[in-house]
Amino acid sequence: MHKLTGPLLLLSSTGDAANIRYAAGFAAPDAVVYLRWGRRQYLVVPVLEVGRAHAETKAVTIFSPLDLGLPRQARRRVDAWVMGLLARLRCRRVAVTAAFPLGLARRLTRQGIRLRMLSSAVFPEREIKSAAEIKKIGVVQRAAVAALRRAIRCLRAARITKAGRLMLHGRVLTSEALQLEIGMELLRQGCQPGDIIAACGKQAANPHCLGTGPLRAGRPIVMDIFPRHQTTGYWGDLTRTVVKGRASPVLRRAQRAVDAAQRAALGRIKAGVAVAAVHRAAAAVFQQWGYATELHGRVPSGYIHSTGHGVGLEIHEAPMLAAGPGRLKAGQVVTVEPGLYYPGLGGVRREDTVVVTRRGWRYLAPCRTPREV
Amino acid sequence: MHKLTGPLLLLSSTGDAANIRYAAGFAAPDAVVYLRWGRRQYLVVPVLEVGRAHAETKAVTIFSPLDLGLPRQARRRVDAWVMGLLARLRCRRVAVTAAFPLGLARRLTRQGIRLRMLSSAVFPEREIKSAAEIKKIGVVQRAAVAALRRAIRCLRAARITKAGRLMLHGRVLTSEALQLEIGMELLRQGCQPGDIIAACGKQAANPHCLGTGPLRAGRPIVMDIFPRHQTTGYWGDLTRTVVKGRASPVLRRAQRAVDAAQRAALGRIKAGVAVAAVHRAAAAVFQQWGYATELHGRVPSGYIHSTGHGVGLEIHEAPMLAAGPGRLKAGQVVTVEPGLYYPGLGGVRREDTVVVTRRGWRYLAPCRTPREV
Repeated sequence: MHKLTGPLLLLSSTGDAANIRYAAGFAAPDAVVYLRWGRRQYLVVPVLEVGRAHAETKAVTIFSPLDLGLPRQARRRVDAWVMGLLARLRCRRVAVTAAFPLGLARRLTRQGIRLRMLSSAVFPEREIKSAAEIKKIGVVQRAAVAALRRAIRCLRAARITKAGRLMLHGRVLTSEALQLEIGMELLRQGCQPGDIIAACGKQAANPHCLGTGPLRAGRPIVMDIFPRHQTTGYWGDLTRTVVKGRASPVLRRAQRAVDAAQRAALGRIKAGVAVAAVHRAAAAVFQQWGYATELHGRVPSGYIHSTGHGVGLEIHEAPMLAAGPGRLKAGQVVTVEPGLYYPGLGGVRREDTVVVTRRGWRYLAPCRTPREV
Repeated sequence: MHKLTGPLLLLSSTGDAANIRYAAGFAAPDAVVYLRWGRRQYLVVPVLEVGRAHAETKAVTIFSPLDLGLPRQARRRVDAWVMGLLARLRCRRVAVTAAFPLGLARRLTRQGIRLRMLSSAVFPEREIKSAAEIKKIGVVQRAAVAALRRAIRCLRAARITKAGRLMLHGRVLTSEALQLEIGMELLRQGCQPGDIIAACGKQAANPHCLGTGPLRAGRPIVMDIFPRHQTTGYWGDLTRTVVKGRASPVLRRAQRAVDAAQRAALGRIKAGVAVAAVHRAAAAVFQQWGYATELHGRVPSGYIHSTGHGVGLEIHEAPMLAAGPGRLKAGQVVTVEPGLYYPGLGGVRREDTVVVTRRGWRYLAPCRTPREV
């Protein structure tokens, strides 16, 4: 684990739920407080979570607000839990993250507790996935592939009306219907669906538009599937853009450019390579193909996001494959997802999640899909 | 809206995503920065969200990190977005929440920005739901009822083996199978399933144990369903405890006590009543029936949680129906969910979500269920 030996204090409420799950094995919907001091780990959890915390963690000392002897009116306040825990352990100095809450920081400082703010990631080792973690992420990624295949089967089975809409089993096929098919398959595979993108045409010009209403032939249909496993808590991430019927030459060229950009980015992936070089490789392909990126103006267009991000206990975690510092390391799990977005055309994105290796990379779950169905 | 007239700064990363959605109508999976100054509202969103932010908000000025003229290496840092926004607007003082990140607070202070920490809720008016909001929560609550009914149909259709397991369509009926049935129905109703509790027997002694493995006859099966609507973002919350086959006299008595405690708590609900009185009403029933609450010891048992919580754009929001200050107000939407938990018996909980009215309360979605199926 971490080299830090002094006491480290984390709160689930300030973006550290994944770190606490990583270190203590406990995931709670409510606020919990985590302290590590040397080799000892402590959790303060709500009274109703004490039993589960005992059952699901090991080598962690569990406290409830009651164990800390807090007065009745303070028992629901996480601030009081922290102060009670530090008092109980006679701990007078803690390391905290930059996201630590200002209000609590002021209270602790007034009590004479010294706060040291961490300048780097709490558990940088989280970036390097163990074989067991890679297996868990692989399970989710395969679930995403299975769900995507179902959606593609629906699109394939649909017929095109004269007006260019899609009909399946006598009904107009919509974004919502595809999201439902994808979500059902994810549930069957033991994953939580969460948000599912199935956006068509102009809607797809906004990368995070989930999509709504009737799907149309000849337009890009972006399906971005990022489920989380119900039990393990790990995420997967997969995107494909398909066209029902025939794509226009303009759209087909954009699809080919995105595929080429993904190949170029993947071609650079290897332990030791700068993350910025991977991003540049994708961006360079778009430039060569003549796709200008216009980041200014009312609505940016072209290649308007980074090339990828780490995936693990969070859907977006380190490393970012973007302009910036850092080099890839073996064992990182990252998405590679170039895309093009234009208000008139819509969006085209292709995303796979891969493991960085010493010699290159490998798919967590390969997924061959057609550009047209 | 809020009486505060000075500039108010919120970050989605510090628990204010629901407040930002409430005020600006924009929900993003990534970090966004919100500033309100008098009647003007501003959002800083990632480049890839600019198009969607323009499309989905009105009367909000949208900035991307590029619009703020940030240097390349600062474009991904939310800290830099905040500083760029304040510089652009020549804003030298802001109100922030107690959850505001310590690191950013220190940076702003160094730049001469004065921070005032809010001592109360950002938008206390969020507690009082409009007719439109109540309608939206009602949609989700009805989805939860529909999903529960599906699960009960499965339990009803199952047969009991000699070993006391449940069989449905030739398969052992498990917690996971019930969660799947519930999740599928929630998806059909346009809701995100998220975590679903379908915990049997001793597992149910931990209120937040989701449940795993074969269900058993004669044991409590706690089903707690709290979906979120895909489009509106509002939540619902519903729990029932049923027994397949015959409940033991001990278990049946616990079910009746929980029903009586819920009736007693509901009986107190009315605008103007102290929230603590509602909680006391439920707790008093358990005491009268002889159910001791043991909050100390390794694993607390009895009535180990509060009687309810507000429901809206967050699953747990104000008010809490618990020991503590505050009175109910007309238009609040709250759960009423007493329960009993003992390691030997398991758990029994019954939860409905209701609207507080001037004269009492009404169900968002009534749900009659049997204690035994």
